[in-house]
Amino acid sequence: MNAARRIKRIYSQMNEQGVDSLLVCLPANITYLTGYPSRDSWLLIAKGKNVYITDPRYGAEAKKCLGRGFSVRQAGGPLTEALAAIAVETKIKKLGLEQKHISAYAYQKITSCLAGITKTIPTIDIVERLREIKSPEEIKKIARAAVIATDALRFIKRHISAGAREIEIAGEIERFIRYKGAEGPSFDIIVASGPNSSYPHHKTSSRKIGRNEPVLIDMGVDYCGYKSDLTMVFFSGRINPLVRKVYDVVAEARNLAIKRVKPGVRTRQVDMAARQYIAEKGYGGLFSHSLGHGVGLEIHESPRLSPREDRIIKKGMVFTIEPAVYLPGEFGIRLEEMVVVTRKGAKILGGTFNK
Amino acid sequence: MNAARRIKRIYSQMNEQGVDSLLVCLPANITYLTGYPSRDSWLLIAKGKNVYITDPRYGAEAKKCLGRGFSVRQAGGPLTEALAAIAVETKIKKLGLEQKHISAYAYQKITSCLAGITKTIPTIDIVERLREIKSPEEIKKIARAAVIATDALRFIKRHISAGAREIEIAGEIERFIRYKGAEGPSFDIIVASGPNSSYPHHKTSSRKIGRNEPVLIDMGVDYCGYKSDLTMVFFSGRINPLVRKVYDVVAEARNLAIKRVKPGVRTRQVDMAARQYIAEKGYGGLFSHSLGHGVGLEIHESPRLSPREDRIIKKGMVFTIEPAVYLPGEFGIRLEEMVVVTRKGAKILGGTFNK
Repeated sequence: MNAARRIKRIYSQMNEQGVDSLLVCLPANITYLTGYPSRDSWLLIAKGKNVYITDPRYGAEAKKCLGRGFSVRQAGGPLTEALAAIAVETKIKKLGLEQKHISAYAYQKITSCLAGITKTIPTIDIVERLREIKSPEEIKKIARAAVIATDALRFIKRHISAGAREIEIAGEIERFIRYKGAEGPSFDIIVASGPNSSYPHHKTSSRKIGRNEPVLIDMGVDYCGYKSDLTMVFFSGRINPLVRKVYDVVAEARNLAIKRVKPGVRTRQVDMAARQYIAEKGYGGLFSHSLGHGVGLEIHESPRLSPREDRIIKKGMVFTIEPAVYLPGEFGIRLEEMVVVTRKGAKILGGTFNK
Repeated sequence: MNAARRIKRIYSQMNEQGVDSLLVCLPANITYLTGYPSRDSWLLIAKGKNVYITDPRYGAEAKKCLGRGFSVRQAGGPLTEALAAIAVETKIKKLGLEQKHISAYAYQKITSCLAGITKTIPTIDIVERLREIKSPEEIKKIARAAVIATDALRFIKRHISAGAREIEIAGEIERFIRYKGAEGPSFDIIVASGPNSSYPHHKTSSRKIGRNEPVLIDMGVDYCGYKSDLTMVFFSGRINPLVRKVYDVVAEARNLAIKRVKPGVRTRQVDMAARQYIAEKGYGGLFSHSLGHGVGLEIHESPRLSPREDRIIKKGMVFTIEPAVYLPGEFGIRLEEMVVVTRKGAKILGGTFNK
């Protein structure tokens, strides 16, 4: 889907939310609409005019890279002032502001800058909803990102041994993925050894891996702007029986959830498939987070698979399935796959390394 | 300065801005006040009670890592609801919200959740201003981050040659810094070869370095939460006379600016020292961005050295000096150092590689 078609589609959403123009603030939303990797800039969609508002660091690059249908406004001062000038020129009356992605400060500043000219209206998820369903071209890029991540996990296996530091493992992965064509990691790589694995979002440290420990690695890459996100648990030696038991429970929970995915099924049903199985096996209180989240231009995007949300699964959605069990201070097991929803069900992205 | 003293100092600022409590949202601000690397969480400072509000991913880790003087509230649902409950318990009347760091959506949601209980008031830069002046312990960590970055630039020199790809160079740097004890890069490493160097914030690509090209590398590391930020230009072979000329102009502009730094001098004077020299040499329109920015727990923080701001330089400030000249589509030269302000003037951090 090209930029022009995407922008056309958001006009109907803008209409529904009662605005004649939209200031897109979230970089991923701007990238989605322009095809250009946006940083620190805004995109104004207004009555057929699309203006990329940026500062001198990006002006020349944006002019070179943005396609037809976009003009570039390089602001000498604050972006807010440039926006106000454009609002007057284009005579927009009701400007939508992405309330989740603009600071309260900027919202207030824009509103007072435009007083008497343009009304500001908070909008919600206009571009995000469109981004939920991936096009075949997007799925190709996400799949490539997942393949590079799988390759990295396969590669890193040989580095997992007692004595290696968590940050060194992360460094080896980062180097590997760049040589495979990734633009970089899609988030701070998590390498959590031994008891560190019991903290779901451990910050990779200089801890040395001990003997016979689980080593949880949660990582992904950025490929042409699209992200991947996979988690695997390795072992530095023997696997103790409790760890093995928990591992098998989590692996089976993952399989059950993946099997449950189909267009028309609700996200909560998929979450429950894993959550109930883990509870039945006696680890109910120890799986504390959501089962999964959408992945695309952002590492966490819509839809979320959790007990607290309920959305209908549709063909073209891409999300993670990542059940886990954490025994605080002891160890944790999380196994994360990425799936794309096809007509028939879930297709796993990134090969079959985790199976 | 320990957590208790830092929190005591922000109370006087809170008082000035008319609030009896403050919701700290910016991760770097929370980290500053707690010493704990915060992610996706809030810190409520309220009448001697300091509550870290987080979700199940971080609850156990936060409880383990946060010092005395902080309690942890693990929210089952949205953080806003947990906050509302605490507001009732602690009977706070005027809650400050960091307007630059909270979304318009969250601001609105908190305000309506607390209606009739607590008034919300936008605050500005309460913690940021305190963070401007670094303590000797902070300077030690920043200096270490700068040394690792300097070592990385020295190391990468041997990899700069025609045929190597920009992303591969970035991958080598990332691996190197992890083995040197960095937690990771402090921002996406910029490797900009040939014409790519003419875009100030080029996105590192898979372009192969050509022969006799300038290769601009802008990188830094994260060490114990503190950041560094340095830029160096290398050459893949011969240096053409125009490039050499521009390089010398930028290097001299950098030296002039660094010499100008002293407690009591205004940031604009330092900016002008470099900017005027570049203009005198005939490249005035081609240095388009600010001269520098503060560095600490964030890669860009206060103060900014630019023609549009004017602050008094104080002992203990740490900032970059990064003049540049960009010839669009041809090449760019940016040379960036980090300095700490001492009683006598600027002390360069990270060794003397750039001199």
